[in-house]
Amino acid sequence: MANSKEILVLGGAGYIGSHTIVELVKAGYQPVVADNAFNSSPECVTRIQNLLDRKIEFYQVDMRDKEGLRNVFSKHNFYAVIHLAGLKAVGESVQIPLSYYSINIGGTISLLEVMKEFKVFNIAFSSSAAVYGDPQFLPITEDHPTGRCANPYGRTKYFIEEIFKDLCKAEPEWNVFLLRYFNPVGAHESGVIGEDPRGIPNNLMPYVSQVCVGKREYLTIFGNDYDTHDGTGVRDYVHVVDLAAAHALAIDKMEGEHGCKIYNLGSGKGISVLDIIKEFEKASGNKVPYKIVDRRPGDVPKSYADVSLAEKELGWKTMKNLQEMCEDTWKWQSGNPSGFLKN
Amino acid sequence: MANSKEILVLGGAGYIGSHTIVELVKAGYQPVVADNAFNSSPECVTRIQNLLDRKIEFYQVDMRDKEGLRNVFSKHNFYAVIHLAGLKAVGESVQIPLSYYSINIGGTISLLEVMKEFKVFNIAFSSSAAVYGDPQFLPITEDHPTGRCANPYGRTKYFIEEIFKDLCKAEPEWNVFLLRYFNPVGAHESGVIGEDPRGIPNNLMPYVSQVCVGKREYLTIFGNDYDTHDGTGVRDYVHVVDLAAAHALAIDKMEGEHGCKIYNLGSGKGISVLDIIKEFEKASGNKVPYKIVDRRPGDVPKSYADVSLAEKELGWKTMKNLQEMCEDTWKWQSGNPSGFLKN
Repeated sequence: MANSKEILVLGGAGYIGSHTIVELVKAGYQPVVADNAFNSSPECVTRIQNLLDRKIEFYQVDMRDKEGLRNVFSKHNFYAVIHLAGLKAVGESVQIPLSYYSINIGGTISLLEVMKEFKVFNIAFSSSAAVYGDPQFLPITEDHPTGRCANPYGRTKYFIEEIFKDLCKAEPEWNVFLLRYFNPVGAHESGVIGEDPRGIPNNLMPYVSQVCVGKREYLTIFGNDYDTHDGTGVRDYVHVVDLAAAHALAIDKMEGEHGCKIYNLGSGKGISVLDIIKEFEKASGNKVPYKIVDRRPGDVPKSYADVSLAEKELGWKTMKNLQEMCEDTWKWQSGNPSGFLKN
Repeated sequence: MANSKEILVLGGAGYIGSHTIVELVKAGYQPVVADNAFNSSPECVTRIQNLLDRKIEFYQVDMRDKEGLRNVFSKHNFYAVIHLAGLKAVGESVQIPLSYYSINIGGTISLLEVMKEFKVFNIAFSSSAAVYGDPQFLPITEDHPTGRCANPYGRTKYFIEEIFKDLCKAEPEWNVFLLRYFNPVGAHESGVIGEDPRGIPNNLMPYVSQVCVGKREYLTIFGNDYDTHDGTGVRDYVHVVDLAAAHALAIDKMEGEHGCKIYNLGSGKGISVLDIIKEFEKASGNKVPYKIVDRRPGDVPKSYADVSLAEKELGWKTMKNLQEMCEDTWKWQSGNPSGFLKN
């Protein structure tokens, strides 16, 4: 199905953005990338171009720079924006909250103002399970209360969601998909793109993979006395290629819609830290040394999504299991021990 | 007590800002005004200068304009900022939420970034009782839950409060006073400055005074069957000169402090719509015709503050009663039927 619709992927050189570009192209869309390259690498876009054997237009622009955004919008006829730009490290957000509010919220407001100027009202926004705070029930449905976030990162996502909701109430031309990611992991099966965190990884899977490849000595597990099947924390991991596919499905569904829709994007399954380690050891053939220490303040025992709404309304189903999450992460990590940097 | 400390009053040409300038000068401070003059008038600053018989420096600058702010900061040595800038009409915020988020939140982030550049860490912010949403108990204390706001205006205040709290946790040099205003009314006793709303007033007192002066035909009362002493809605009205004085006391208290402090600023008394009408008729000698219609969705029966914390920690006590609120409003309104515009 030929489809020449241009889609602006803001933050498209990042982890989820890069995989989303691949899925958009597979679905027949024409993605255009804008990224400030703060935590991402233009090399990633080069790799995607090689992988897809086609040119992907790339603009290095910060979303807070309205003139820069206007320049991009003036050169294209966007059907929709996929907004994945922003800072995303929980720990860092506690240390430098003003940067998080400035970039994530200031940037989003600037983007929305420019979209309005150019009459582009279709947008999918990368929100997060962080908006839920401590789960009050499991699995977490989309109508679980939001706003009691544990950190500034989560608050930026929550505030942006509220801005979108108010905007949709006031201006019916907006067509907003709030996509609440659970824990994205894995990499493209080709092994040429994947997660490339700067510095010490904040998330479990890249940390495990860096231990496995010899970049880190051991993994620290925060608590093994939780009320879970093996005592370690349980989260909802979702393969990044599945997650990326949901964005293409969201774009498919935008035609004729309006208002604000919210979808959990997870696997719907609870997976523990030890589950990941076991599976990763199988995938890599290496041991993952770990140390167990006390629980970390703010961590919850379990969190996983009810994903039936995305299945029902977007026709989205995750296709990849834990084995593939670990194997694909390992393929990327072992083939690119320094990420997108030349080794 | 001579005191040459320069205080930047952002939004200083507005209703509360202008009265705050007078109180700052009385307390020996040297206020400098910055205002974008969106909803305020430079004529107001001229009047203050005449009233005080001294020059007040005025910059027309929007707080989202970082270069403009830097210019102001570079010319002064500010001890503190009183941040009263922003949009404040509840109904309008429902209609144009993006402007509210852009100006109130984007502007505050921009201000904080510039303050940091210039190492000015003392700030008093004009928050609102709107952060409390529907009161869960009365009187409302500062530890009443916040965040379930009824409109985008309230959400901008709530989000900004949360940004300040995160900032104070991350950077201990900040010294933040969040001042939660209840319902400011009245005017300076001189009658030369007062509230000058553009278009149809959003708040009760200016509406009543415009009816009284003949600019509006009658007042609409939304419901007289609430569980209050006379059936009409009860709010906590506070004289703007008392409110302004609290800002000077907050500045007095800043020396050697750090972190984030929160104070309710109200009278602590519940006053009904009919109470206001009766008192206003006495003050003006005119009748205030009114019509009673159905309750308005989103209105609560009663809201009033516990103000003991501000009394204890700031040494603040309201000095002016309902009679003075009405008399001073009337003096301003009758002497300036077109506000700051030349009649």
